[in-house]
Amino acid sequence: MAVLTPQQEDFPRWYQDVLTKAKLAENGPARGTMVIRPNGYAIWERMQAEVDGRIKAAGAQNAYFPLLIPMNFFEREAEHVEGFSPELAVVTHGGGKELTEPLAIRPTSEAVIGEYMAKWVDSYRDLPLLLNQWANVVRWELRPRIFLRTTEFLWQEGHTAHASQADARQYARRILHDVYLEFMRSVLAMPVIVGRKTAKERFAGAEDTMTCEGVMRDGKALQMATSHELGQRFSRAFNISYSSAEGTTELCWTTSWGASTRMLGGLIMCHGDDFGLVLPPALAPVQVVVVVVKDTDGGVTRAAAALVELLRARGVRVSLDDNVAQAFGWRATEWDLQGVPIRVELGPRDLAENAALLYRRDTRDKNKVGIDDVVDEVQRLTGRIQTDMFEAATARRDATVSDCATLEQARGVAQTGVARVPWELVRTVGEQDLASSGLTVRCLQLSDGSLPETDDDAGALAYVARAY
Amino acid sequence: MAVLTPQQEDFPRWYQDVLTKAKLAENGPARGTMVIRPNGYAIWERMQAEVDGRIKAAGAQNAYFPLLIPMNFFEREAEHVEGFSPELAVVTHGGGKELTEPLAIRPTSEAVIGEYMAKWVDSYRDLPLLLNQWANVVRWELRPRIFLRTTEFLWQEGHTAHASQADARQYARRILHDVYLEFMRSVLAMPVIVGRKTAKERFAGAEDTMTCEGVMRDGKALQMATSHELGQRFSRAFNISYSSAEGTTELCWTTSWGASTRMLGGLIMCHGDDFGLVLPPALAPVQVVVVVVKDTDGGVTRAAAALVELLRARGVRVSLDDNVAQAFGWRATEWDLQGVPIRVELGPRDLAENAALLYRRDTRDKNKVGIDDVVDEVQRLTGRIQTDMFEAATARRDATVSDCATLEQARGVAQTGVARVPWELVRTVGEQDLASSGLTVRCLQLSDGSLPETDDDAGALAYVARAY
Repeated sequence: MAVLTPQQEDFPRWYQDVLTKAKLAENGPARGTMVIRPNGYAIWERMQAEVDGRIKAAGAQNAYFPLLIPMNFFEREAEHVEGFSPELAVVTHGGGKELTEPLAIRPTSEAVIGEYMAKWVDSYRDLPLLLNQWANVVRWELRPRIFLRTTEFLWQEGHTAHASQADARQYARRILHDVYLEFMRSVLAMPVIVGRKTAKERFAGAEDTMTCEGVMRDGKALQMATSHELGQRFSRAFNISYSSAEGTTELCWTTSWGASTRMLGGLIMCHGDDFGLVLPPALAPVQVVVVVVKDTDGGVTRAAAALVELLRARGVRVSLDDNVAQAFGWRATEWDLQGVPIRVELGPRDLAENAALLYRRDTRDKNKVGIDDVVDEVQRLTGRIQTDMFEAATARRDATVSDCATLEQARGVAQTGVARVPWELVRTVGEQDLASSGLTVRCLQLSDGSLPETDDDAGALAYVARAY
Repeated sequence: MAVLTPQQEDFPRWYQDVLTKAKLAENGPARGTMVIRPNGYAIWERMQAEVDGRIKAAGAQNAYFPLLIPMNFFEREAEHVEGFSPELAVVTHGGGKELTEPLAIRPTSEAVIGEYMAKWVDSYRDLPLLLNQWANVVRWELRPRIFLRTTEFLWQEGHTAHASQADARQYARRILHDVYLEFMRSVLAMPVIVGRKTAKERFAGAEDTMTCEGVMRDGKALQMATSHELGQRFSRAFNISYSSAEGTTELCWTTSWGASTRMLGGLIMCHGDDFGLVLPPALAPVQVVVVVVKDTDGGVTRAAAALVELLRARGVRVSLDDNVAQAFGWRATEWDLQGVPIRVELGPRDLAENAALLYRRDTRDKNKVGIDDVVDEVQRLTGRIQTDMFEAATARRDATVSDCATLEQARGVAQTGVARVPWELVRTVGEQDLASSGLTVRCLQLSDGSLPETDDDAGALAYVARAY
């Protein structure tokens, strides 16, 4: 089992080992880019399907906007260009010629989508306009790390236009809660901390950025998804206006929101252990693998294949491992590494006893069950593992978060965990100070867990941590 | 109904009108790019789902490779770089600095994937390696046209490595037939012509390019998908080798194959009519719309909503149009434009008679049916429309193709249709000659419809046409 560097020994090394050994992803040839291998991409496809369904349920429609954006589009919103300029990749030549105007590869699409919203929105009847796209974006990264910070990454970015600030605010929060938080809770089994970003950490061009922050097993935080109120900044820059029912011309209120392949990194570091990935059943591309331990006359393989068919008929995502030419131990290690939630192990002796072993990846417990009970037991276990993983992750998160009464104390706690400290003790000056120790305010939350309405709500609590 | 320019009057104008009026797509801000609007993207998502399922059934796994490829990767395969150099978009600046080596935006991914295949393939046990990715690519286009030729387009590109030429050939043909041809036939209802490309028309770097050529309503051809045998060219350039069972080191044989958003253009121009899009039911994002013609007391709307629920329960993709504030005629025109295959129209008088009108978009026929028969009748009609659309498109294609005995005759026929002429009358010289009249050899086929094995098979027939 010395396949991976133990987490306690060297967490970043463990992470890199998982990526490599589970064949999830590796570095691309151009600096900061990544290759997502089939094992990693299959998980991303499941994330996409689950997030996409929730986005559509929230009324947004998918569309696709160009990768290449004229530089002047960026320059129209001052904070946006200031925030993204240092990260742009720029195309200066096309078709063998130098371009008259350079094109930026989109780092995000507010600018280009703003241009089209302005064309498509005419009257209040066209609102809200609710768009989403699945796309790749490029942001030049100085310290790239696979899934967490890569020059190119995959994501969805939602962009909406509304008639009123209240409507825009409500929708940005709906996405945060009904899409991201709900997905992370019920599919990823991750108890993220939801809050408002400080002015310093806000998306460039936003008036309010709300975030879902995951807590990793090493105590660091990871921003998993964000939802932004953009106010009327992009509407003003791109003239996204509508004629109201009263006949007046009004500027729209816009939002944007995104979640990316970074979630793969969060998933790995929230649930993974020294044996590899641990996937929650609701997400896992393969929920159950039926493993033929060994076989002499084909009887075990036939029984295993029959179980696979029964499970598939119940809608379980199931694989058969009948590769008896490989030692069982080697294969078990491999399935552990891949994080498959449930293993059904079947050998000649089990078959003779009309039984099978059920192994759950999260706790690594094994249980013998009658072969006729396997299907029902697998289905029960699927639900139980999902709940248990969420509870275990919640317990780990809660053990990581400590309330602090001073900035000094918070600085100490945040070296290895998450400090919760009154925002009035931090403020902008304290935030600069924390930054010099490599710490950031991940988000602000009111004491009842709700989101502050302004940058300086009385009683707001700051979550301070190291972050990926 | 003067919504669209009639096809007979000006086909290119009709095409542009459909794109605009049905809100499918429009030009992007950078030359040659496009914005795919929700109505267009919903069709693309259905295409993706159907093609993706078939690719997975053929054993390939999805992965993702970087957008940005170092220029030197391209230069390793001579024909490949020669073919694609004039079309490259080049990133010269990143993160505010000039790059030491410029990066190309992928026009296709053989080069970067070849590099990783070489790392991942070790022994014959790793073969075949069957990969696919869904991605955007960029090729600088001088005469862009939405969906047909755009600087950026969306596609899937499959890339496989095999131990033998026979295996590679078989797989490239399997993709052509079991994925592309089957999808186009049974989902798009398009009777494409399958053949081998001439040396002149081959993919840059391929030894054999096989194609599915669609015939549009104006008699022009459109390449809908291609599958390439790459021989050992990329294996040699990237050193994709394996150790055989006998312990020798051998070069792999590779293939690649792709289908893109161009299929949207083919779909529109193969089936569309003067009233707009005509979507085959197997593809349509909305197969049936239940339209409340008018309503006074809410009774019709309730009955329509009940029909929607019944249809949805049968797995039909169905929408309700209860927007009675808009005139029925306006809405009917709109649903025609969108190409929704079946309309169930329900008004107060129909309800009083316990009946509804069933309208099929392909023939524009209407039929009154008892309200209790609507669900069964819709399901029957769904299958019938799919079959009828394929047959109608086949009849149109067959009427377009004419056998020609001379190159001169072929040149005449191909002005407005497709000429089938013995390849021995054309050859490389004739092909150059045709090109000067704007005509191309779309593909070569043997008289039994099968694919020639070489560039000069005796008895091969050339399909000559104008092409998009």
